[in-house]
Amino acid sequence: MAASKACSSSAATNFKVFRGTFVHSTQEEALVILEDALLGVDSTGKISFVEKGPELEKVSAKFGFNPSAVTQLSPQEFFMPGLVDTHIHAAQYSFAGTALDLPLLDWLQTYTFPVESRYSDLEFARQVYTHVVKRTLRNGTTTACYFATIHTDASLLLGEIANDFGQRALVGKVCMDRNGLHEHYKEETQESLDETSRFISELIKRKYPLVKPVVTPRFSVSCTSELMLKLAEVARNNNLHIQSHISENMDEVRLVQELFPESESYTDVYRKHNLLTSKTIMAHGCYLSDEELQIFHQTGSSLAHCPNSNLSLCSGLLDVRKVLSHKVKLGLGTDVAGGYSPSMLDAVRRTRDTSKALKIQDPVHQTLTWEETFRLATLGGSQALSMDDQTGNFVVGKDFDALRVNVAAPNGPIDLVQDDGPKVHTHTHTHTHTHAHAHAHAHTHTHTDTHACIPMQTHLHTCIYTLYICMHPRCTIHTVKQLIFRVLTLSTQSSIISLSGSAREVPEFG
Amino acid sequence: MAASKACSSSAATNFKVFRGTFVHSTQEEALVILEDALLGVDSTGKISFVEKGPELEKVSAKFGFNPSAVTQLSPQEFFMPGLVDTHIHAAQYSFAGTALDLPLLDWLQTYTFPVESRYSDLEFARQVYTHVVKRTLRNGTTTACYFATIHTDASLLLGEIANDFGQRALVGKVCMDRNGLHEHYKEETQESLDETSRFISELIKRKYPLVKPVVTPRFSVSCTSELMLKLAEVARNNNLHIQSHISENMDEVRLVQELFPESESYTDVYRKHNLLTSKTIMAHGCYLSDEELQIFHQTGSSLAHCPNSNLSLCSGLLDVRKVLSHKVKLGLGTDVAGGYSPSMLDAVRRTRDTSKALKIQDPVHQTLTWEETFRLATLGGSQALSMDDQTGNFVVGKDFDALRVNVAAPNGPIDLVQDDGPKVHTHTHTHTHTHAHAHAHAHTHTHTDTHACIPMQTHLHTCIYTLYICMHPRCTIHTVKQLIFRVLTLSTQSSIISLSGSAREVPEFG
Repeated sequence: MAASKACSSSAATNFKVFRGTFVHSTQEEALVILEDALLGVDSTGKISFVEKGPELEKVSAKFGFNPSAVTQLSPQEFFMPGLVDTHIHAAQYSFAGTALDLPLLDWLQTYTFPVESRYSDLEFARQVYTHVVKRTLRNGTTTACYFATIHTDASLLLGEIANDFGQRALVGKVCMDRNGLHEHYKEETQESLDETSRFISELIKRKYPLVKPVVTPRFSVSCTSELMLKLAEVARNNNLHIQSHISENMDEVRLVQELFPESESYTDVYRKHNLLTSKTIMAHGCYLSDEELQIFHQTGSSLAHCPNSNLSLCSGLLDVRKVLSHKVKLGLGTDVAGGYSPSMLDAVRRTRDTSKALKIQDPVHQTLTWEETFRLATLGGSQALSMDDQTGNFVVGKDFDALRVNVAAPNGPIDLVQDDGPKVHTHTHTHTHTHAHAHAHAHTHTHTDTHACIPMQTHLHTCIYTLYICMHPRCTIHTVKQLIFRVLTLSTQSSIISLSGSAREVPEFG
Repeated sequence: MAASKACSSSAATNFKVFRGTFVHSTQEEALVILEDALLGVDSTGKISFVEKGPELEKVSAKFGFNPSAVTQLSPQEFFMPGLVDTHIHAAQYSFAGTALDLPLLDWLQTYTFPVESRYSDLEFARQVYTHVVKRTLRNGTTTACYFATIHTDASLLLGEIANDFGQRALVGKVCMDRNGLHEHYKEETQESLDETSRFISELIKRKYPLVKPVVTPRFSVSCTSELMLKLAEVARNNNLHIQSHISENMDEVRLVQELFPESESYTDVYRKHNLLTSKTIMAHGCYLSDEELQIFHQTGSSLAHCPNSNLSLCSGLLDVRKVLSHKVKLGLGTDVAGGYSPSMLDAVRRTRDTSKALKIQDPVHQTLTWEETFRLATLGGSQALSMDDQTGNFVVGKDFDALRVNVAAPNGPIDLVQDDGPKVHTHTHTHTHTHAHAHAHAHTHTHTDTHACIPMQTHLHTCIYTLYICMHPRCTIHTVKQLIFRVLTLSTQSSIISLSGSAREVPEFG
């Protein structure tokens, strides 16, 4: 934890400083809860310090800000890192939730390619892309890795819209120079390369602080060897990210074997075409062998796990535990519109479901915990996108991509049992552990401190009046966890406020 | 379809009449879309007629209402039947979303029994039960089959709260006279019987129009033979519903085998204790054999499928297709708090996920369609609860338990692509079928009618300006379906307005 590390170079006086509970992940610990912390954001949106709340005076003197200007979170609020969607087809958002009755290749042919071919219409593109950027931000996605379509101008428009709304994004103009499934939706090889170059140079020229191009061969099925080799060159020459799909569905895997008989595996196809780099993210990977995962590990390429899509299209159940055991970087993706939900909280829940389904099949399978899925959706995603130097958790020097979560938001999805409202008050804990059974979380201390509580239903301990979730560091690590679990299981966008660093204000959504 | 059947006895003049799109299920057809229909509700809340919109004058003359008093739905709205939650533990709502890391028996011991034992506190009970009734109504559950706790007075309070808010409910005071998992949370056998009698007579005495008692032996593990036999008698003597659990988890199944060695199966335990009647609903049933399903069919007992719970607790993946092939009645349940979500739309989605997971394991498995899961959550639930004479679909003589759904609700979860807003207008369909591939839904007619459209993104056909979902009966059956699919996949409570018959007004929730 870099909680007490300060950025000594930050001498600017116009900090934004927040005090309250911060929840995030580190490589060592899936869920770290910082209670009564002080976090400072400099004028460029970077985290300048993470310190302890009670040391406010000392910290304000050191960094030169007015203690009275600190923004105090209410006891019902906490900050968590913005969610990272590592795989989403912006263009497919137009039919999200409507077409999930076919397996992958039929689905592409019947629903997807006909829709994607319409993005030569920039007005249509503007409408859909505005919707998808606003919607994902409302759902807490502060970083998204987008597939657009083959259309350069519409893809540039997606980058512009993401920039306008303050979303960190990788945007890919899709490249595909063969398409047996839909002959009218493809490019010539040279055209694909030329347009990719135009897309990249134009997007870079615009100097969007948060939006970058990503080289995007659709997948091996729709790209010739020549195109893939040359796209790899483009990526290398410009030090760019690469994204594609791999091993989503068994029919697709077999088709790739037929198309590339000289390759040992699907992964080998990409490796042979120099597309597996430390800045490569491949979606799915349901059927990768140990040998293929080893290649991912060696090359530093990562996987985007898209469980809603994999269930909806009956593609497969990715064993995330196996991927992690190979030390392959992995993030979560919505994969709109193969996945119907544009919410990363849905991706978190479906990741858990997939893990549970694997355990039902095989009782020795070790399911992913909520803590682990929380990390995959935040820090894991930033690592998968090789952006963990900029985002993913609350570490000094990174951008403050954060969600301010209010578990008691009006008309929100979480019901709190309470007597007379949230408040900071003195109370006596009467720890009536009615469940005397062995319990990892049981704690037996009593104390009579004054501290902030969230009145909330929990069976773990009773306070006077009713049950509380306390924010006090001495008694509540695991009950705060319960709050976070409720957000992970029950939240909808209404209880999340997207919030980013001071350098870029995310518009308010009602 | 009883669409044109009228209730000739309804001579009352104070109808409520609605005109617009109605969507529901029948035994013959999983998804029936009635476009521009007229539906009349009499002063007791019962559906008096379902007729065709253009025949308004004739219908108003026949039933004696003023045509100008008809409530016209907007083109973005439709009615669907209220959702039926066939299995929900009201008392467990207090910890929904927080405790899903243990298998069933450990979960009961560690989390559930300690919480349930607190419901001797009526103030605590009032808070949680008020939350759960309001929350489920907000989520569109107009009928719920509740487990309360062993506490009679708190269980009566749950019935009172459901009645106050206008929710149709079966309420069960839980009976359990043995509990090896938590010695302090159980009753003596005679006490359980006496309190059950008190609960039933008191609840019936209150004459709530929509709330009835259900005899509730918790499950075979926590009931002696004597208690089960006598509860069966109580149910028979009072012609009451029965609810319990069956075959949720393999450890539980084995434990029941040990506890009742003389029985051939878990189902046989209940049969031998006379608890399987045509008004019995059993939750889960993940591991029932063909022989056991045959007993369900013969007795007319039904199953409550609770997929969120079954995934969350790693209980199992119920093969709904197999259950239906045995002609066993089946509804869906949230099973709060084994299931973390109090939304039946979540139950619909997880039913689909479970079916997809089964297909991933076995490619010949025939997945459930959205249409089928829609039916299970409405008509199927009413049949499982033996309440399909009162609710479940829009048939003359049933109560009008309905949800008024607005797919374009402000800040709702569905984004519609549009030019200049929803409207009734003249337009020319230019059916540019860019997807010339074989497509079950393709339609080739052209027409230039004046009719109501919902401007909405769809790939199926293009209108002038942009794409539309049309409510016109000649061109849109499957595109209206797409709208419904979006509601099933994407909706949260914010886009649903619970609405019931005129006899009982459901309070507005902000």
